[in-house]
Amino acid sequence: MNLKRVGNQTVVFANPPVILSSYSVVGPKEGQGPLGKTFDAVWQDNINGNTSWEIAESKMLEAAIQGAIEQTKLKSDEIDYMLAGDLLNQIISANFAARSVGLPFIGIYGACSTMALSMALGSMLIDGQFARNVVVGVSSHHDTAERQYRLPTEQGGQRAMSAQWTVTGAGSLVLAQSGTGPRITAATIGRVLDYGEKDVNNMGAAMAPAVADTILNHMHDLNRNPKDYDLIVSGDLANVGLALAKEVLKKSGLDMGNEFTDCGVLIYDSSQDVHAGASGCGCSAVVFAGNIMKKLTSGEYKRVLLVGSGALHSPTSSLQGESIPGVGHAVVIEA
Amino acid sequence: MNLKRVGNQTVVFANPPVILSSYSVVGPKEGQGPLGKTFDAVWQDNINGNTSWEIAESKMLEAAIQGAIEQTKLKSDEIDYMLAGDLLNQIISANFAARSVGLPFIGIYGACSTMALSMALGSMLIDGQFARNVVVGVSSHHDTAERQYRLPTEQGGQRAMSAQWTVTGAGSLVLAQSGTGPRITAATIGRVLDYGEKDVNNMGAAMAPAVADTILNHMHDLNRNPKDYDLIVSGDLANVGLALAKEVLKKSGLDMGNEFTDCGVLIYDSSQDVHAGASGCGCSAVVFAGNIMKKLTSGEYKRVLLVGSGALHSPTSSLQGESIPGVGHAVVIEA
Repeated sequence: MNLKRVGNQTVVFANPPVILSSYSVVGPKEGQGPLGKTFDAVWQDNINGNTSWEIAESKMLEAAIQGAIEQTKLKSDEIDYMLAGDLLNQIISANFAARSVGLPFIGIYGACSTMALSMALGSMLIDGQFARNVVVGVSSHHDTAERQYRLPTEQGGQRAMSAQWTVTGAGSLVLAQSGTGPRITAATIGRVLDYGEKDVNNMGAAMAPAVADTILNHMHDLNRNPKDYDLIVSGDLANVGLALAKEVLKKSGLDMGNEFTDCGVLIYDSSQDVHAGASGCGCSAVVFAGNIMKKLTSGEYKRVLLVGSGALHSPTSSLQGESIPGVGHAVVIEA
Repeated sequence: MNLKRVGNQTVVFANPPVILSSYSVVGPKEGQGPLGKTFDAVWQDNINGNTSWEIAESKMLEAAIQGAIEQTKLKSDEIDYMLAGDLLNQIISANFAARSVGLPFIGIYGACSTMALSMALGSMLIDGQFARNVVVGVSSHHDTAERQYRLPTEQGGQRAMSAQWTVTGAGSLVLAQSGTGPRITAATIGRVLDYGEKDVNNMGAAMAPAVADTILNHMHDLNRNPKDYDLIVSGDLANVGLALAKEVLKKSGLDMGNEFTDCGVLIYDSSQDVHAGASGCGCSAVVFAGNIMKKLTSGEYKRVLLVGSGALHSPTSSLQGESIPGVGHAVVIEA
């Protein structure tokens, strides 16, 4: 049997799936940021008339998924699977969105790496001939994450300078066997690494080694170097984690150059008081579905490496004294 | 492109993946049940010398995965992916097991349907030529689930007669491109259905419609009927949900006969005070990896339909007044 694997961790698609459409929905803070004009919809507030932040997040994900589907003109029975996940316990945002969308549903969890993981898996389902079209989508929400992972939002506790601000946003893509658009050409699924970081206010440091490991394996497997990409973008290490990942990679002999940045660095500007930057699986989802997709479509980017990064702890594991395992999943997108 | 889809929701594998090995680890209550002798390892107590039930659950999953890998004689660099999930917030049992196992990791969440979902996805990765061998595994633990989903375990609150007892157990399989063993020949990924059940002490009722929907679609897609299977087994509806699923299917014109049962009915006997029966993703995992695998290997079963069933709520969604969405994922295993 002809394996589509190259090296230890990378697969190269025989018929690279097309990204037929993308759709992003964000909250007001993200709309006011430097990428504000690249999003398809910006909510006026974080609850948008719903009765809870959790219901709002699920509705936001549903809106992103329906938005991506509508842009394709496909009928819903032409879409074979929905792949989705989010940060909430039991991925309820995705589950409840799947209830409304009504498609066969595959729930995934990779913390902030979930968008890249969904793109990798969705591409495998299409290239493996199990689906004609697949919709993928993920979400995060500042207020649902804050009270689940950290402290009551009303408390207004002071945040550490290494802390990241969870993005309120949902992004979705329709992947297809055929059509016009950028193509997902390869994917590198990451290993879970843990160098003992226990500070839940410094998730960038916890994830940086896993992101570096995936980038190193990806370059090795495909015999490429960072110059082969117009953009290498992690999501979401933010400023602290990005600097650490660059340092780890440099010590491993890989100079990442100026094309290596992070979705958690791009989405807010320094006036927005977000400390180290952004996080949340919605962050890389909306930065990719908005800004990066536009630049791939315009031809400004020819080849992009998106490396989703996930901190795989829970409040319970941290309270029990466990360190924070990290993971990085990479996908290559070509115009 | 030659699609491997049949009907609306089912895929039929071109080169059906082989189940090369299986391994199950359970707690003492499961060891004392009617299937006790079919498990590979039985713990003397639910914590097994660890410092918390959560760490114990993760170690149990790790033991199941390492047990399944060891039986194959494969080297770990011949296994391309680990797919795993569990019931805990942020699937920490799977994440921490993945940290120890060290393989490229795909985290999934389907509540109690996670074992069947991992078998379907793992088979797609192999049949799609993305992997030579894949290890899949899931776990649940009575005491971690009880305090996360319901009440402090020390409280000893009275349980409803429709409530299910979460299995302490972890099951794992190694799936392969080639070798000797039962084969996974088809899979039907389910849609999320919700008929408004809000009682978290009656998850069987919440899941029954989705299981019935997946069975109906599966039979329709493949033009089969229940007599084409030696065993149709859901996991885990328990007694209340199984009776409801049978009734829904009968009203839809499908008489399931005597071969339709449920992992949550099989694992405990009536003397074990579990009320409606068992639940937890470990339940269908260990019943399949133990009892069903043995009967497939011995030739007693020629063709089995395993229908994983998941209740896709969270304590937060229920406290906010939401009903409980259900899902069913089916896989066909043939001797």
